[in-house]
Formats: sequence, C-alpha cells, structure tokens
Amino acid sequence: MTSRRPTIGVFDSGFGGLTVLKALLELIPDADYAYFGDTARLPYGSKSVETVARYAVEAAHFLEGSGAALLVIACNTATALALDRITAGAHVPVVGVVEPGAGAAASVSANKKVVVVGTEATVSSHAYRKALEARGLSAREKACPLLVPLVEEGWVEHRVTEQVAGIYLGEAFADGFQDADTLVLGCTHYPLIKPLLHRIAPAHVSIVDSAESTARAVAGHLKNLLPPAVDQERRSKPRLKFFATDSVEKFRRLGQRFLGHPIEDVQHVDLKE
Amino acid sequence: MTSRRPTIGVFDSGFGGLTVLKALLELIPDADYAYFGDTARLPYGSKSVETVARYAVEAAHFLEGSGAALLVIACNTATALALDRITAGAHVPVVGVVEPGAGAAASVSANKKVVVVGTEATVSSHAYRKALEARGLSAREKACPLLVPLVEEGWVEHRVTEQVAGIYLGEAFADGFQDADTLVLGCTHYPLIKPLLHRIAPAHVSIVDSAESTARAVAGHLKNLLPPAVDQERRSKPRLKFFATDSVEKFRRLGQRFLGHPIEDVQHVDLKE
Repeated sequence: MTSRRPTIGVFDSGFGGLTVLKALLELIPDADYAYFGDTARLPYGSKSVETVARYAVEAAHFLEGSGAALLVIACNTATALALDRITAGAHVPVVGVVEPGAGAAASVSANKKVVVVGTEATVSSHAYRKALEARGLSAREKACPLLVPLVEEGWVEHRVTEQVAGIYLGEAFADGFQDADTLVLGCTHYPLIKPLLHRIAPAHVSIVDSAESTARAVAGHLKNLLPPAVDQERRSKPRLKFFATDSVEKFRRLGQRFLGHPIEDVQHVDLKE
Repeated sequence: MTSRRPTIGVFDSGFGGLTVLKALLELIPDADYAYFGDTARLPYGSKSVETVARYAVEAAHFLEGSGAALLVIACNTATALALDRITAGAHVPVVGVVEPGAGAAASVSANKKVVVVGTEATVSSHAYRKALEARGLSAREKACPLLVPLVEEGWVEHRVTEQVAGIYLGEAFADGFQDADTLVLGCTHYPLIKPLLHRIAPAHVSIVDSAESTARAVAGHLKNLLPPAVDQERRSKPRLKFFATDSVEKFRRLGQRFLGHPIEDVQHVDLKE
C-alpha cells in the first residue's frame, strides 16, 4: 500500500535547517518529512561555491532517492550558491530559502532598505541583494562568521554574543543604512538568537526570518503537486526521519535545540560519489 | 635523477598545521615539504572519531602517494582521534603532535600540573590526559570551541577574544587546578593568540605549543631514516607544495597568516575513495 501523503525532503549542512523544518511542521502537518544534515562536512558558510555545490547536489540526490516529492534547501549558503545546480539535477520541485526570505522582507520593509546578515559564502554570492533589488529594495549584506559557532556553543543569551552581534550590526547599520528598517536573518542558525538580535538592532527595525515564508512557499507548491490527502491521512501525525553524515548521537543532542523537541529516528549516512 | 632530499608530508584539517610547518622549516630547512589542508571538510574539532579517522586516513594516503617519506599529523584532533589508524595504514613513519606536546609539558612543568586547551573532539578523546599521566603529570582538559572561529575571523588581539579566552581559562584554572603551572595549546590554531593567552592566563603559567617539539621529534626520525644530504642539496631552499580540498585562493589568503609568509604553489585536490 502506498501512502498519498507526500514526503518533503529538507536539507541543510547541519542543524540550522531544523528551524525551517519546525515551521514546515506547524504549517503542513499532513506530510511526512526526511531531513538530511551534512554534519560531517559542515559548515558550508566558509567554503567555496564549487565545494558547496558538489555537497548540496549529492545531498539532494540522496533525499530524492529516499522518496522525497519536493526538496526544501533549508540552508542559505546552499541556496545562495547552488540552487540552480540542485534544481537542474532534480526531478522534483526544489524550494530554497532566499526567494521566500526576500519576499517577506519586501512586504515588511516600509522604506525599502534592508540589512541582510549571513555567512561569508552567502554574502559573497550576493544572492539576497539580487533577490531584493529585483523587488525594488536596496540591501546591505553583512557576513557574521562568529554567530554560527556562538549559537552552536549554546551562548544564545550570552554577553559575548551580544557584543559580537553589536559589532556586526553596528558595521551593517551604517554608511547610508542607518535608517534601514528591516533585518533579514540570512542563515538558519540565527532564529535561535532572534530575541538577542531584537535587543541589539536599532529600535525601529523589524526582523524577518525565512523559515515561515519558506514554509508558505512549500505549501503553495504542494497544492499544485498533489491531490488533497484523504481524511485519515490528514489526521495522522507526520513521520519524521533524520539522516546525518556525522555522529547520530550528536545530531540528536544538538538538533533538539533547533527543532524544539526531541529527535528520535536518526540514521547515519556516508555520502560517496 | 632522484633527489636524496626527503619530502616531509604535513597534514591538517585546514590552516592550523601551518604553524607546525613553520617550525619544521626553521629546524629542518634541508628537506622538501608537501602540505595537505582538508579545507573542504574542516573543522575536524567538532566531529566524531569515525568521521575524523576516515578523513585523516584518506589525507595520509594522499601524501604518501605524493612521495612523502614521513608524515606529520599537524592537527591535534586528527592525532588524538586517529593516529593509531593512520600509522597502521601507512608505510612510512608517522609523527603526531600530542606526544611531543606532552613531552614538552613534562619538561616545563615544575609542579606536574597542567591545563590543556583544545577542540571538543581532542578533549573528549583524553589523548593529552593519557599522554601526560603516563609522564606523571595530572591534567585538566578544557574544550574551547570558539577560539578557532575567532582566530579565523582574524580577531587575534580583540577584546571579544580576550573575554572568551578569559571565560575558558577561568573555568580551566579552577577546582584544584588554580595552581597548574603550564598551559598546553592543544590545537594548532592557538599559537596565533599566544600573546593574548599569556596576558589572560595566571601570571605564573608557562605556555607550551607543540609545534617546536613536534619539529624536534621529526628531526630525530629523519636522522634514522635517511643519510645526511650532500652539501649541494643541503644548501638549496626547501621546495614547498600545498594541496587544499577547498578554494586555493582562500588557502593562499588565510594560510599566509599562519605560515608567516606568502604561499605560492597551491593545488586543488578532490578526495574521493
């Protein structure tokens, strides 16, 4: 018996994409999910476009091979550097986080001036600036390489994280962007320090994270892709499967901080071409 | 014509091992060097023993295949987690950084009580504690996961780095280790913040980094391994070849901070089993 419930494949270099999975589970509970974290090769954010694209395409193939009817690239770096290559190689629809994030920023920003924070690789790609300029916004992009390690150290309400964020945001909201009214979290780790960023950012600034808008984009795709699930299927809880390329024990331990609840079914995967 | 000058293979997950290469070049200028930085998969310090061992063995095979007559594992994490497996698979002598570092600490520490700082993986392996206890020393090991990203951000003399180091060292030099008289830098990134650590550590503390003692261990091995080079060979400058698994441009740019002079000949390598 095959289920008509779709399986949504969600991919990230590690744990950050779990913040997107969390938003997906809230908005689309009548689907199953396969999450792939490439934890043996993380982080992607400091690496080159060639390397990130190769890794991301391998991961996308794995999820498609596992039966995913749609792929969510829940990683800003992989989306920014490799969405075209992933889409070209995939046989199912692919949704990244940059376009939904840019769309959300466009609807939130009154003065059409935004600051985007992300990894070194995401910022160097200018994927956000292009997506925002296409919507008539001007954007300052700022690389914040220390924020991911600070989040992974668990220092989400720590004075050191406050200082580091203060330095980065101080440099970003300057030189013609003092009055930018929106801060786009261009990395899926950053929602964990959203309360801290709210305190540090200038008072008039709204914060956009792309998890929720990405979930809405996925819901739109699904509607076109599949007939509505029958009632029985709709009522049952999502099945969640997790795959990690490094230690499953560490994935369970660190992952629950991002997902907000315990992680059960994790399998180790060894990606070789 | 084959040269009698040995090629020494030096391996690290990324850039930190260049501090060891620097010490090798000073002590053993009459050799050639092949340096391998696994920059596409760095960092190793947050990853599991299985993953690190697999990566390190692949890198060691690559260097041996490139003609290395001796391998230096210039990475504390790879040494701590995988030296046995690298040595078992290699056909040439293998020198790690933990034993030389422990030996240096034993000769420096008067009260036989030391603090070792390193990555999460190095500390979890207790490789240093075992090596130090075997020499009659007692050791407190402390994981400092933020120091590598801070060094890579270039914040080697930054107040944030001072605070972070202050927190880590404060926790380490406590609970019976207030009077430890030696600090072992159990990560090859840390020599770049040695002046800062000198200021932060208790005033009576000596700092040991394993680069120099590792270079001496290598010199000892070479003496047994090869006849003395002829005068002509001895006089010529070391040939340096660099291999990196991620961007060569980034390797050149970041690497020179660690080596202390410009890096010329870098080739990209794609490791697949």
